[in-house]
Amino acid sequence: MTSQDTGLDTRFTLATAIAREAGAMALDYFNRRDSLVIETKRDLQDVVSIADRNVETLIREKVEAALPGDGFLGEEFGHTAGTSGYTWVVDPIDGTAPFVNGMPNWCVSIAVLHDGVPVIGVIDAPCHGEVYAAATGRGAELNGRRLSLDPSRTIRNGMTGLGANSYVTPEAVADIVSRLLHEGGTFMRNGSGALMLAYVAAGRLVGYYEPYMHAWDCLAGYCLVTEAGGWHLPFPTEGEKLTRGSPVVAAGPGARIDLEKLAGLA
Amino acid sequence: MTSQDTGLDTRFTLATAIAREAGAMALDYFNRRDSLVIETKRDLQDVVSIADRNVETLIREKVEAALPGDGFLGEEFGHTAGTSGYTWVVDPIDGTAPFVNGMPNWCVSIAVLHDGVPVIGVIDAPCHGEVYAAATGRGAELNGRRLSLDPSRTIRNGMTGLGANSYVTPEAVADIVSRLLHEGGTFMRNGSGALMLAYVAAGRLVGYYEPYMHAWDCLAGYCLVTEAGGWHLPFPTEGEKLTRGSPVVAAGPGARIDLEKLAGLA
Repeated sequence: MTSQDTGLDTRFTLATAIAREAGAMALDYFNRRDSLVIETKRDLQDVVSIADRNVETLIREKVEAALPGDGFLGEEFGHTAGTSGYTWVVDPIDGTAPFVNGMPNWCVSIAVLHDGVPVIGVIDAPCHGEVYAAATGRGAELNGRRLSLDPSRTIRNGMTGLGANSYVTPEAVADIVSRLLHEGGTFMRNGSGALMLAYVAAGRLVGYYEPYMHAWDCLAGYCLVTEAGGWHLPFPTEGEKLTRGSPVVAAGPGARIDLEKLAGLA
Repeated sequence: MTSQDTGLDTRFTLATAIAREAGAMALDYFNRRDSLVIETKRDLQDVVSIADRNVETLIREKVEAALPGDGFLGEEFGHTAGTSGYTWVVDPIDGTAPFVNGMPNWCVSIAVLHDGVPVIGVIDAPCHGEVYAAATGRGAELNGRRLSLDPSRTIRNGMTGLGANSYVTPEAVADIVSRLLHEGGTFMRNGSGALMLAYVAAGRLVGYYEPYMHAWDCLAGYCLVTEAGGWHLPFPTEGEKLTRGSPVVAAGPGARIDLEKLAGLA
């Protein structure tokens, strides 16, 4: 075992443990959100923002205590550079809209990059009791069950996940929907891009496309998809690019060409 | 208590009990679907069709045994006229695509009509451990908690559910998406129209629109939405119309006008 292997395994174990703990904390906020609104005299959006920040702080503190040389990028508190070559990229609650509206489709997303490549991806979906975990060369698992994508699944016999946000025009979103349906596909959108990428890794969705996402939304899912035997568009992680938005495309082997077409890449 | 009240309460109790039993049966198929494919040497779609038919048969037999004069309309086996003035309208598994692909967003949907009006709606979502139940004048509940819609929720501060199927052109779906986004809304689609209507009743979605749905997909959800204080477009239930498709629109009080506009009704 090389020192890089040791470094990876240490972080994979830690990432999985932290994701579970962070998921439990977020679930507690989720279950108590109505009473918290009353207790704190704040609105629901504020309560969710507090949950988001406190979950990210939990994750940051755990990583810093165990591996002080690692870098950290979180949605809430930004980027802290490291010295070890490893950077944690975290969305404490991905799917804030489902969370705030009381729907179960949200998750904690933790990726670890090594020299810019996502080598660990852990996604915890507490309302569903599901933990997705992958590390380079170790495969991808859902609650301990190995994930391996079926090449016979295509956009015509499976569902494709779509995402959108205010960075993308209504016309562009409508055009994506129209072209996907014309190709014989069907779409779903559950409100959490990270969770839909985990669904691609699990073969539940044949692919995912969102024209603009951030690193914390997609890198854990990307590692899962790769380790399950799927493909994704590279996300630029050099320097400042890591904190900017970029198109996100992922697919199982039977849907790759159609997803590349949908995203205007082929 | 009038005899109509007694008839309603009898059926409400029965519908809730049957929905739970049907949900448990469907969940058992869902959890065993991969091994069933191997055991039966059939494909996954066949296994789901068997589950669909067997769950509907369970519901039909329970209703027939208890209330032999009631009519019954199910997605799988069609319409049997009754003599009591009550008709059960059932989708044994709504959200077949999520079900077949291993996603939790599916449900059992049971409505009871009295003289063409949905007076009972029960939706059981087994993967989420949630039972939504409503009857005319009795209110709507989720796992025993009363549902009451907040008029301050609009398409601009909440999410709107959309549905589509092959009866609707890609251009029409894209146009709906584009117009909703232009009005400042966001959409979600979890693959089960009945469940998304239950989410409208629970205030998780501010509204739902699908240009073409069947009675078994929407009538339970419609009863839930009404009893939670929301609005829905009437579904034509006279004679043959009950078995045909129709537009489905539902909304909480703060989103009604925007949903009517989205559906081209205002």
